[in-house]
Amino acid sequence: MNYKMVIHTVGQVVLLEAAMLVLPLLVSFYYGDGCALPFLQTIAIALAVGGSLTLLCRPKNHNVFAREGFSIVSFSWLLLSAIGALPFVFSGDIPAYVDAFFETVSGFTTTGASILTDVEAMHRSNLFWRSFTHWVGGMGVLVLVTIIADKLPERSMNILKAEMPGPIVGKLVPKTKDTSRILYLIYLGITVLVAVLLVIGGMPLFESVVHAFGTAGTGGFGVKSDSIAGYSPYLQWVITFGMLAFGVNFNIYFLLLLRRFGVALRSTELWTYLGIVTASVLAITVNIASLYETAGDSLRYAAFQVASVVTTTGYATTDFNLWPEFSKAILFLLMFMGACAGSTGGGLKVSRVVILAQMIRAEVRRMVHPRAVSVVRYEGNTVDKETQTGTATYFALYSLCIVATYLLISFDPFSFETHFSAAVACFNNIGPGFDVVGPTGSFVDYSDFSKIVLSFAMLLGRLEIFPLLLTFIPAGWHRR
Amino acid sequence: MNYKMVIHTVGQVVLLEAAMLVLPLLVSFYYGDGCALPFLQTIAIALAVGGSLTLLCRPKNHNVFAREGFSIVSFSWLLLSAIGALPFVFSGDIPAYVDAFFETVSGFTTTGASILTDVEAMHRSNLFWRSFTHWVGGMGVLVLVTIIADKLPERSMNILKAEMPGPIVGKLVPKTKDTSRILYLIYLGITVLVAVLLVIGGMPLFESVVHAFGTAGTGGFGVKSDSIAGYSPYLQWVITFGMLAFGVNFNIYFLLLLRRFGVALRSTELWTYLGIVTASVLAITVNIASLYETAGDSLRYAAFQVASVVTTTGYATTDFNLWPEFSKAILFLLMFMGACAGSTGGGLKVSRVVILAQMIRAEVRRMVHPRAVSVVRYEGNTVDKETQTGTATYFALYSLCIVATYLLISFDPFSFETHFSAAVACFNNIGPGFDVVGPTGSFVDYSDFSKIVLSFAMLLGRLEIFPLLLTFIPAGWHRR
Repeated sequence: MNYKMVIHTVGQVVLLEAAMLVLPLLVSFYYGDGCALPFLQTIAIALAVGGSLTLLCRPKNHNVFAREGFSIVSFSWLLLSAIGALPFVFSGDIPAYVDAFFETVSGFTTTGASILTDVEAMHRSNLFWRSFTHWVGGMGVLVLVTIIADKLPERSMNILKAEMPGPIVGKLVPKTKDTSRILYLIYLGITVLVAVLLVIGGMPLFESVVHAFGTAGTGGFGVKSDSIAGYSPYLQWVITFGMLAFGVNFNIYFLLLLRRFGVALRSTELWTYLGIVTASVLAITVNIASLYETAGDSLRYAAFQVASVVTTTGYATTDFNLWPEFSKAILFLLMFMGACAGSTGGGLKVSRVVILAQMIRAEVRRMVHPRAVSVVRYEGNTVDKETQTGTATYFALYSLCIVATYLLISFDPFSFETHFSAAVACFNNIGPGFDVVGPTGSFVDYSDFSKIVLSFAMLLGRLEIFPLLLTFIPAGWHRR
Repeated sequence: MNYKMVIHTVGQVVLLEAAMLVLPLLVSFYYGDGCALPFLQTIAIALAVGGSLTLLCRPKNHNVFAREGFSIVSFSWLLLSAIGALPFVFSGDIPAYVDAFFETVSGFTTTGASILTDVEAMHRSNLFWRSFTHWVGGMGVLVLVTIIADKLPERSMNILKAEMPGPIVGKLVPKTKDTSRILYLIYLGITVLVAVLLVIGGMPLFESVVHAFGTAGTGGFGVKSDSIAGYSPYLQWVITFGMLAFGVNFNIYFLLLLRRFGVALRSTELWTYLGIVTASVLAITVNIASLYETAGDSLRYAAFQVASVVTTTGYATTDFNLWPEFSKAILFLLMFMGACAGSTGGGLKVSRVVILAQMIRAEVRRMVHPRAVSVVRYEGNTVDKETQTGTATYFALYSLCIVATYLLISFDPFSFETHFSAAVACFNNIGPGFDVVGPTGSFVDYSDFSKIVLSFAMLLGRLEIFPLLLTFIPAGWHRR
């Protein structure tokens, strides 16, 4: 293990965070909300920590293999959250550090689970920072690092592999650096588009930017206690389509940019994603029809909530806790699936669901025709046995993590529905669950122990388990 | 597909049911409970249906391949339940046929989920029949058929494969016929032992026999509204150890009979099973200590409920709905795992859990050492890729079935906890779930639609999905 390289890179990431913190500092100056000092203090700490890590550990060789990549990613996210939590504490907006840590992990992992009971009482600069962590977390701050610190091309692919959600990292352009840059430009472009469409719809600029961040990162932090419920139908539709757009595999946009429309539109994952979204919206629209005045209202509420849950964003325009059980059941199942691989969404990913479904089909065929060879195909290619076993094993590990989270937080005195949905919502990076942690509730009443468990669940889910697992399990366990 | 052979064999099974129905008829005569006529009517119907199926369809060739085996098993269980439900309807104990069908499926699948609100008002012969279906279902009525109709040895292994729970069917003796016979003798032996121990403890003979049936089949039907709560601590301990004994892989007993103690005691599955049971009992004992007077009481309640849930029996000595969430969470997770493969229990099976855990470990190793070959071992043997993919795929399909069941029953106006635990408890053949369907509740208030869905869930779970799935999905779906 190349420890020096790991520490050095993590230091660079923390220095980058110092730079990012300048943005909320400027927001604080602009609005004069009196939060400049907490941000200046945090920037000083980030510079000190990042500077010393970078300067004191100068690696002799720059080799980054799987283990190093995983460790860099894990420690970066932990340290980013640990330092990013400080402005909330220093400003007094979130006095308890554990709460602030939970909120910041929730931000960087684009979860959107909150311990706040009155978000509208927060300082503007803190609200901005909180949502900005979503945007940074969205595509992975590490990809950003690969763009900036591109002196070491050979290590980039390993970090990218640990960072990018989904089972298959497509190497669309020969250089990782170029891929990252193009992906980030697409990401920035759609974010700006959403913000502009919100401003056009009459949303104030500050709120538009914050909600564009939350939508792009599929995070879910907003600025109102009732989330998006108070905005006009037009604004709700903009955010609905915005969330769905960020749930699409970015390779699709990439292919569209390259004018390879045929390849883009033949994507199994894309059509499965759109098909499941459409079916869920229609089913819920019918199921909740009696609760709202017009069919249009039902459709709007159904579409918003489905888009929010399937992309693991977590915004809400209504308290879906009060919906009929069938609609809640659909939302609950969408929580597990999540969005497409290579998007900013969390969850199991549509690609894995498709591969698992194909594996089931192949297994059924094998039962009937024991001697026949059953091939699993995905996006036109044969999925090799290695990837099949990997996908199925990931699903088992994924289930195990959710179950372990649920077990550990169940010491707190809430309902089964609260605990189970809290574990599912945090691990899949959605945000709100049901009952106590529903869209109008909060995670504040959980014990500190449970908040730390849930923070780790968010990180595990966001990093797709392995980076964190390999960093923290004893080395002997996976030695041969 | 050899339809004639399928129909012929299903006919034989129904004839066998006619013979089985003589037992409750004798019970009815003995106690003079006035239920003789309903049983005579049902026997007549079973003879007519079974006789005509057997006589009218005389197969020209006796080939039974996988598909035929699966169809025989599926239709047998469906028809057994459909006819076995009649005495409840004819006697007026369960007037609605759907309710009676649910109760009978629950019996034959050894689930123990009940729609009864006052079990003590039932006729004795019906109580006997209800529990006897557990005993018959326990090891699979089809294994019984292979013993009796052993004229066709070549087909037996295929039926046994469709019938026996667990991923690996051990061929311990060369002939299926002999294996079945020995397994049945062990089964009968331990059942008698449990009944005798119960009689010694002062339980009336009738109740001892009924509870021995329920314990042996890991079913859960009893004769009292409070299940086992009213019996003495001694009797509760007998049933605790009885349930645990029937959750052990019968191959272990077989090996012990052959005096191969070394092989038997090296079983990974056995030790994993015992380890998980012990850990769960200890954790719950501590967690519920404040609810009961002495530590001994807590231990007894914890041990009974853990044994009941892990073996998927479903008896109760206390309303675990009222336990702290952590204890409920442990029970909830044990519901998924179930007992050992090759036992009478349901669920995912300890063997699959062990293999999945080994696969996760191998995957972790593969992440760190990409070029190393990681071997998955189980019970001292290497698990081939085929079995690995099969196990993991089964887990995905298993999850899908539970989720689908939950979605379909969620139209009814109960809580998330009720619906989700009902789906889990039925599919894993446990019986009671939480909340409305908890140990003191019943499934009676579910709609007819949901009762039928849950009946199919019980059958799917008991037959480990594939037989029923392959019988009812359109042939084109799995054609190459």
